[in-house]
Amino acid sequence: MKAAQARAATLVEALPYIRRFADQVVVVKYGGNALAGASDHDGLALFAQDVVLMRQVGMRPVVVHGGGPQISELMSRLGMQPEFRDGLRVTDAGTVGVVQMVLTGQVNPQIVAAINVHGPLAVGVSGGDAGLIRAVARDERLGFVGDVQTVNPTILRRLLDDEFIPVVATVGTDDIGRPYNINADAVAGAIAEALGAAKLVYLTDIDGLRRVVDDPSSLIRQTTPDELDELMADGTIAGGMIPKVESCVHAVRAGVGRAHILDGRIPHVLLLEVFTDEGIGTMVVGER
Amino acid sequence: MKAAQARAATLVEALPYIRRFADQVVVVKYGGNALAGASDHDGLALFAQDVVLMRQVGMRPVVVHGGGPQISELMSRLGMQPEFRDGLRVTDAGTVGVVQMVLTGQVNPQIVAAINVHGPLAVGVSGGDAGLIRAVARDERLGFVGDVQTVNPTILRRLLDDEFIPVVATVGTDDIGRPYNINADAVAGAIAEALGAAKLVYLTDIDGLRRVVDDPSSLIRQTTPDELDELMADGTIAGGMIPKVESCVHAVRAGVGRAHILDGRIPHVLLLEVFTDEGIGTMVVGER
Amino acid sequence: MKAAQARAATLVEALPYIRRFADQVVVVKYGGNALAGASDHDGLALFAQDVVLMRQVGMRPVVVHGGGPQISELMSRLGMQPEFRDGLRVTDAGTVGVVQMVLTGQVNPQIVAAINVHGPLAVGVSGGDAGLIRAVARDERLGFVGDVQTVNPTILRRLLDDEFIPVVATVGTDDIGRPYNINADAVAGAIAEALGAAKLVYLTDIDGLRRVVDDPSSLIRQTTPDELDELMADGTIAGGMIPKVESCVHAVRAGVGRAHILDGRIPHVLLLEVFTDEGIGTMVVGER
Amino acid sequence: MKAAQARAATLVEALPYIRRFADQVVVVKYGGNALAGASDHDGLALFAQDVVLMRQVGMRPVVVHGGGPQISELMSRLGMQPEFRDGLRVTDAGTVGVVQMVLTGQVNPQIVAAINVHGPLAVGVSGGDAGLIRAVARDERLGFVGDVQTVNPTILRRLLDDEFIPVVATVGTDDIGRPYNINADAVAGAIAEALGAAKLVYLTDIDGLRRVVDDPSSLIRQTTPDELDELMADGTIAGGMIPKVESCVHAVRAGVGRAHILDGRIPHVLLLEVFTDEGIGTMVVGER
Amino acid sequence: MKAAQARAATLVEALPYIRRFADQVVVVKYGGNALAGASDHDGLALFAQDVVLMRQVGMRPVVVHGGGPQISELMSRLGMQPEFRDGLRVTDAGTVGVVQMVLTGQVNPQIVAAINVHGPLAVGVSGGDAGLIRAVARDERLGFVGDVQTVNPTILRRLLDDEFIPVVATVGTDDIGRPYNINADAVAGAIAEALGAAKLVYLTDIDGLRRVVDDPSSLIRQTTPDELDELMADGTIAGGMIPKVESCVHAVRAGVGRAHILDGRIPHVLLLEVFTDEGIGTMVVGER
Amino acid sequence: MKAAQARAATLVEALPYIRRFADQVVVVKYGGNALAGASDHDGLALFAQDVVLMRQVGMRPVVVHGGGPQISELMSRLGMQPEFRDGLRVTDAGTVGVVQMVLTGQVNPQIVAAINVHGPLAVGVSGGDAGLIRAVARDERLGFVGDVQTVNPTILRRLLDDEFIPVVATVGTDDIGRPYNINADAVAGAIAEALGAAKLVYLTDIDGLRRVVDDPSSLIRQTTPDELDELMADGTIAGGMIPKVESCVHAVRAGVGRAHILDGRIPHVLLLEVFTDEGIGTMVVGER
Repeated sequence: MKAAQARAATLVEALPYIRRFADQVVVVKYGGNALAGASDHDGLALFAQDVVLMRQVGMRPVVVHGGGPQISELMSRLGMQPEFRDGLRVTDAGTVGVVQMVLTGQVNPQIVAAINVHGPLAVGVSGGDAGLIRAVARDERLGFVGDVQTVNPTILRRLLDDEFIPVVATVGTDDIGRPYNINADAVAGAIAEALGAAKLVYLTDIDGLRRVVDDPSSLIRQTTPDELDELMADGTIAGGMIPKVESCVHAVRAGVGRAHILDGRIPHVLLLEVFTDEGIGTMVVGER
Repeated sequence: MKAAQARAATLVEALPYIRRFADQVVVVKYGGNALAGASDHDGLALFAQDVVLMRQVGMRPVVVHGGGPQISELMSRLGMQPEFRDGLRVTDAGTVGVVQMVLTGQVNPQIVAAINVHGPLAVGVSGGDAGLIRAVARDERLGFVGDVQTVNPTILRRLLDDEFIPVVATVGTDDIGRPYNINADAVAGAIAEALGAAKLVYLTDIDGLRRVVDDPSSLIRQTTPDELDELMADGTIAGGMIPKVESCVHAVRAGVGRAHILDGRIPHVLLLEVFTDEGIGTMVVGER
Repeated sequence: MKAAQARAATLVEALPYIRRFADQVVVVKYGGNALAGASDHDGLALFAQDVVLMRQVGMRPVVVHGGGPQISELMSRLGMQPEFRDGLRVTDAGTVGVVQMVLTGQVNPQIVAAINVHGPLAVGVSGGDAGLIRAVARDERLGFVGDVQTVNPTILRRLLDDEFIPVVATVGTDDIGRPYNINADAVAGAIAEALGAAKLVYLTDIDGLRRVVDDPSSLIRQTTPDELDELMADGTIAGGMIPKVESCVHAVRAGVGRAHILDGRIPHVLLLEVFTDEGIGTMVVGER
Repeated sequence: MKAAQARAATLVEALPYIRRFADQVVVVKYGGNALAGASDHDGLALFAQDVVLMRQVGMRPVVVHGGGPQISELMSRLGMQPEFRDGLRVTDAGTVGVVQMVLTGQVNPQIVAAINVHGPLAVGVSGGDAGLIRAVARDERLGFVGDVQTVNPTILRRLLDDEFIPVVATVGTDDIGRPYNINADAVAGAIAEALGAAKLVYLTDIDGLRRVVDDPSSLIRQTTPDELDELMADGTIAGGMIPKVESCVHAVRAGVGRAHILDGRIPHVLLLEVFTDEGIGTMVVGER
Repeated sequence: MKAAQARAATLVEALPYIRRFADQVVVVKYGGNALAGASDHDGLALFAQDVVLMRQVGMRPVVVHGGGPQISELMSRLGMQPEFRDGLRVTDAGTVGVVQMVLTGQVNPQIVAAINVHGPLAVGVSGGDAGLIRAVARDERLGFVGDVQTVNPTILRRLLDDEFIPVVATVGTDDIGRPYNINADAVAGAIAEALGAAKLVYLTDIDGLRRVVDDPSSLIRQTTPDELDELMADGTIAGGMIPKVESCVHAVRAGVGRAHILDGRIPHVLLLEVFTDEGIGTMVVGER
Repeated sequence: MKAAQARAATLVEALPYIRRFADQVVVVKYGGNALAGASDHDGLALFAQDVVLMRQVGMRPVVVHGGGPQISELMSRLGMQPEFRDGLRVTDAGTVGVVQMVLTGQVNPQIVAAINVHGPLAVGVSGGDAGLIRAVARDERLGFVGDVQTVNPTILRRLLDDEFIPVVATVGTDDIGRPYNINADAVAGAIAEALGAAKLVYLTDIDGLRRVVDDPSSLIRQTTPDELDELMADGTIAGGMIPKVESCVHAVRAGVGRAHILDGRIPHVLLLEVFTDEGIGTMVVGER
C-alpha cells in the first residue's frame, strides 16, 4: 500500500508535465561516445525507449548525434592519416566523405533502428536533406570544416507534424552541395533555436557542470547564461564542454526555454528530468 | 538513486497508458455516500484531482453521481414522510421535486466546485438537459420512480469535444418534461454504453466483489459477465451491489471495454487503476 | 385576400430581421415571478415557443433567470428566518444553499423542460459551471451576497456554437468554489456584455418605463443611457427597476446593440419585438 | 393589439418553414409574358423582392425564364418571317441567333437587374455556360429546335454555394456549341430534377389547374402525377399548360419534393406559398 | 534526335513558368474585330485552345471582350441611325439595349461555346451580374455612355476558385440597374487591377507599339508607364491605341505584374508569350 | 517564326500531360552505374533538373537508387574479400555495414545534393526510416541478403504531401532492426506498387528491350506482362535485365499505370518520355 501511494505520488507529479510539454519540441544531443562502447548498447535501448515514451505522450523529441569515435575507426581501417597544415588539422574531400558516410550511413541508421524496434517512428535526416544545415567553411586552409550558417527547419517541422521522431546526422552542405564536418553540439543548439524548442538537452558522461572541477559537491544545479560566460572566461569550464556550454548560452538567450547538461549514464535520465520535480544535472535558464 | 529508479519505473509503466487512453471516455460513478460524511471532503478533493489529471493528459472522464443521504436529509428537514402504496415506497410529485433539487441543485454543484478549484473544467448536467436521460415510469403505483428509456449523449459528446468534464445528476424526464427518480448506478452504465466508453468505474466503499462475502482473501480480481450472472443467481452478490453489477454486466456486453468496482476510500485509486499494471478491486472483461 | 396580403406584409417585414439577427446573441432575462403563479404556466409555454423559434431561424438566445418567490417559499417550508445584522439582511451558508438548490435544482429544470418539449435544445447552466460567474462578496457582514466579478463566457459560447439554448441559473462562486447569491438582472447584463449580444431583453410585468409613473401615456419608447442616468438620479426610476435599468445602461455603453424592457405578459412579445418594425415597451440605444 | 396577435400568429406559422427550407433549392419558372406588359414591371419588382427574401433567410432560389413575346417583337423589327417546312415552323440559324440574343442579352439582364437593386445577388446564366443545358435536335427538318438531353448543374451548385441567385436563360447548346431553342417550362423541370429541388414553382396567369375549365370552383388544390396523367389523357388539361404539367409530373416522380402551379399575378404569391400553411394554386405531390 | 533535344529545350524553358504562374490571374482582352471576319473563326478556336491549356496547367485566365462591328451590324439591320447631340454621338435607351443584346447575347455565347468545345469550362458573365461593373454616366448629354465607377470582382473570384474560365461582356449598370455602354479596353484594365492580375494582355491586330509608326524596326519590346505617358503626350501613340495604353499604364501602376500588347494574329501567341523566354510584342513593366 | 510555331506545337502537346499527371506518383530507378563514372556528373545534373521540373509542375517523383560500383570500391579499399559458402556469395555483418554506409551515407547524399542545387526539395530516406522497407533473409547461408517483405509507404506519402522529393537508399531492415542488402530494382517496383504510382521508370544504359538482342531494329516499343513472361521464359531477356523486367511485370499487374525501360544516357529522357507523344524506349502496359 505504501508502494502504491509512492506510485500515486509519482503520477500526480508527472501528469501535469505531460500537459505542459504537450506539442513542445525537445532537442536531445546524443553523443557518439555513448554508442562506441559495446556495453552501451543497453544505454541506447533505454535512451530509445525514453524518446519513444516522450513522443507517445505528445511531446516532439528531436535527436541530434555526432560520431567521433566511429569516424576515427573507419579512417584508421582505411589507412587514412590525419593531415595538418600550419599546425591545424585539415579535412580534405576524402576525409569529409568518410565523415558523411559514418554519420549518415552508420551511426544514424543505428539510432533509427533502436527507436524503430518500438514502431515506425524514427526517420533519419542528414544536414543536406531539404537544405536543413547550410554550412560555411571556417577557414579555407582547413578544407571542409564548417560552421552552421543557417538552419532550415522545414523538414523537421513536417516530420514532427506527422508524428515522426527526426534523428539528425550533423553534416552540413554549402550552396553547391558539398558536405562539411560540423560540431554536433553546435548543430543541436542551432536546431533547438530554429524550432523554438522548450528544452535543449545534452546527454554527456559527466554528472553536470561543477564550480570546482574535482569537487562533486560543487555541482551547479541551476545557472544562467551570464554566469556561464563568466565560468568560461575564468577557465572553470574548458575543453570539450565549451561547445556544449556555448550552445546552451546562445540557445537560452535566443528563446529556448531551458538547456540541460545531464549524465547520460543514468538509466532513463531523460524521463526523470522531464517528468519529475527533482533537479538532475545542470539546468540553464534565462535571466529575467 | 533507488528512489529515482523506482520513479522511472512508474513512469515507464504509466506513459503507454496515456497513449492508450488518449481521447477515450471513462465514466466514473461517484457515490452520494462519499460526500455525506464530513471527513470525506478530503476524499472529494483527491477524487477531483484525479479526474482533472485524467482530463489533462487527454482522457475524457465523465462523472455520474447520486445523492441518497442528502435527499433523505432534506426530506426530514421538510417533515416529509415516506409514503407507501401496496407496500411499495411511492415517489410523489413533491418527493421527486426534492430529489431533483438535491441532486441538481446541491450535490452536483458541490462536485463541480471541487473540480473547478483546478480551473474552469467541470460542467454540471442534469438528465433533462438536451434530453440526456429519457425516463419511463417503472410502475404507475410508485409515481415518479423511473427507468432509463434512452440516453441522448449529444450534450456529453459536445462537452467532451470542448474539453470539459461533464458531471451528471441522475434525474430523468419523460416526454412531457416531468422529472423522475432513477437509480444512479443504472444511469452510469447506460451513459457508458451510449458513449462507447473504454471504462466504467464504480467507486464504492468495499474493496471489490468477493466469492465469499466474509473472506477478504476471496476478492475477485477479474471476472466476466457470465460468472457475474451466476454469482447473482446463487445469491453471492446481493443487495445494493446488484444495480452496480447488473450495469457492469450489461455495459461490458454492450461493448464498454472494461468495468471496475473499486474501493473509493483508497487515495488516488482512479490514477492507480488507470496508470499502473497492478490490478485493483474487481475488473469485469468481456468473454471472447 | 386582404388577410393574405396582411400576412405577406408581415413576412416582408419579418424576413430581413432573420438575416440581420442570424447568429446574433440575444440574452433574455425571464423573471421568477412569471413562474410563481399557477396561471403563468401558459406564459412559460409561449415564452419557450418564442425562444425555440428564434433558435430555429438561426439566432442564439440565452435565457437568464432568478427565482425570488420560489426561494422564499422553500425557506418558509424549512422554517428558516431571515437574519439581519446591523440592519442588513444576511445570507448565511444555509441560506445560500437554499438559493442554489432552488435556482439550479428547481427553477432551472422547469424552464429547461418547457423548452425541451420542442426537442433536445435547452441546457441548464449554473454559475459555477466552467467558471461562468465568478462572484465577490459585497460586504462581509452580509455573508454570501455577491456581485459579479467576472464572467467567463466560454461554456455559453460552446453551447451556442453547438446550437443549444443555454438557460442560466444566477448563482456565482468565489475562487474556492463557495456559492453566492447574486442579482439576476445584473447577471443578465454582464452575460450580454461578455457575449457581445445584439440584444438584452428584460421580460417584466410592466409595459415599459414611464416618465410619469402613473401616466401610461408617458411610456418611454426609446431612450439612451444618459437619459436613464438622469431619470434614476431624479428618482423617476426607482425600486426594483434600478438593477434592470442600470444593467441596460452599462450593457449598451459596453457595446450591446440594444436593451429592451418589455411586458412579458403580452403573448409572443419576444417575437413581436424582434421581427416587427413596431416598437414595443422601452428600447435603450447607444448615443452616437 | 389584435393586429399584433395576428402578426404573431403569422410569425409562429412562418418561422418553422424557414428552418424546414434552409439550404433547400426552389426552382421558379418566371414567364416572359409577365415581363412583356408595361404594367408588369411592378410585378417584376415584387417577384424580385420575394426571391431576395427567400435567399436571405437561407433558401436557394433558382430563377428560370423564357421570353416568347420579346423574341417575336425583335423578329418583327428585323422583318424576319416565320418559315415553315412540311407544315412545321422552322428555326433556322438566324432565328435561333435572335432567340439567344433576346433571352440571354435582353430578358435575362432585365431580371438580374431587378434582383440586384437589393444587392449583388443575381448572376445570369445561359444554357451554354459550363455546359449547363446540352440540347439535342428534336427533328432535323425543324432546324435548331431542341430538347433537353442532359443538364450539368455544376455551375448552378457552385453559384448557390456562393450564395448567389442564378437566373437561367433557357438556351441549350449541342456538342459543337451551336445554340438551340428549348421550351423553358421543360428546362425548369429538368433543372429542378438535376438539383434535387424541394420545390418547382410555375408562376402563371391562371389561378391553378381546374377539373372543369370554366368552373373556378373546380380548382384542384392538391393532386398527384397519376391524376394529372389522366387529366391530360382525357383532354381536361391541354394547350400551353401541357409542358408545365408534364414537367411537374416528371419532376415529382424524379424526386422533386413538390411542384406548384401558382397565379403569378397575386402579389408576393411566392412568399405566401412558401411561408404559410394555407394552400395556394395547385400543388403536385408524389404518391406513396 | 535533334528535334527531340529542341523539344526538351522548349520544355525545360516552359515548365518553370507553369510553377511561376500557378494560380495567377491573367486577364486577356479579346477584340470584337477578331470575331467579325469569317476567316477568324480558326483564330477563335486557337485562342480558345490557348486559354483552356492555361487553365489546365493551373493559371486563372479571364477573357474580356467587346463587339463593336457586331453592334454596328445589328443597328444597321434594325435601321437605327446614329444620333448626335452637340456634335457628340449619343447612346439612347434603344441603342444601349442593342449593345447589351449583342455583347451579352451574341458575342459572349460565341466565345463561351468555342472554349466549351474542350469541356464545361467557360461561364459568360455580364457587367450586371453580381454587381460586377458599376457604371457612371460620362456626360448626361451622351445618354448611356459610361465609365467604370467600381469593379466588384467577387463573382469572378468565385468562378476562378471553382476552376471556371469567366468570359466578361463589357456592359455596366448604374445603381438602379440601367445598362451602359463602356469601353472594353478600360474594363479589361479595371478587372485586372481588381483581381491583382499577374498579367494583362491585349490581343490586337498590330505587332506591338512602335516608336516610329511606319518603321517596323522601331517596335518597342519593353517599356514603362512613364515612357508611355511621354509617347502619348507627344502623339506617337494615338487613336484607338489610347484606351489600351492608358489601361496598361494605370494597371501596372496599380500593381498588375506586367501588361502586354500582342499581335493576336500569330497562332498561339498567348502560349508563346507566357511559356517562352522570347519577348513578343510590347511588354509594360513597372519602374523600380 | 517557324521555330516559334514548333515551340507552340511542343507546348500544345506537353500541357495536357501536366494536367494528366498532376499529383501522380512517378517512381524513377536511377542506377549506381550512372554515378560511378566521372563524366556522368553532367548526367546526374540533367537528371536532377528533370526531377525538379516534374515536381514543380505538380507531379510526385520518387527517386530510388542502388550503388553497386561504389560498394565494390569501398570494400576493395578496406581490403575486404568476397566470401562464398557452398558456392554462393555471402553478405556478412561487416559487408552489409559497408553496403549501408555507401548507399545511405555516400550515394544518397550525392543525389540529394544534386537535386537541392535547385532548392530545398530532396530528402534522403533509408529503408530503415519509419519502417519503409522490411526485409526478410533470402537464405540463411547467405547472411544479410534480403528480399522485400513489406513496404510501409507512410513516410514517402508524408514527404510527397509536403512537396518534397524522396530519394530512397535501398537498404532494408528486419524486425529487430538489422540491415539487409536488397536488389534496388526490386525495391523500386515494390515502392511503385505501394504508392499506386502512375509510372515506374528504369533508367538504364540500353535503348530498351529488344526481341533480337543484337538487332537495334527489333526494339520493343510497347509490350505486356504476358509477352515479357514469354521473353524471359525463352531466354530473350536475361542477366541483369531480369530484376527490372520482373519488377515491371509485377508492378503493372499490381496496378501501376505504366512501366518504362529508358536509355538514361539520352539528355532529358525523363521529360521527353513524360511530356511528349513520341514513344521512347520500351513501355509496359497492362492487358485489358
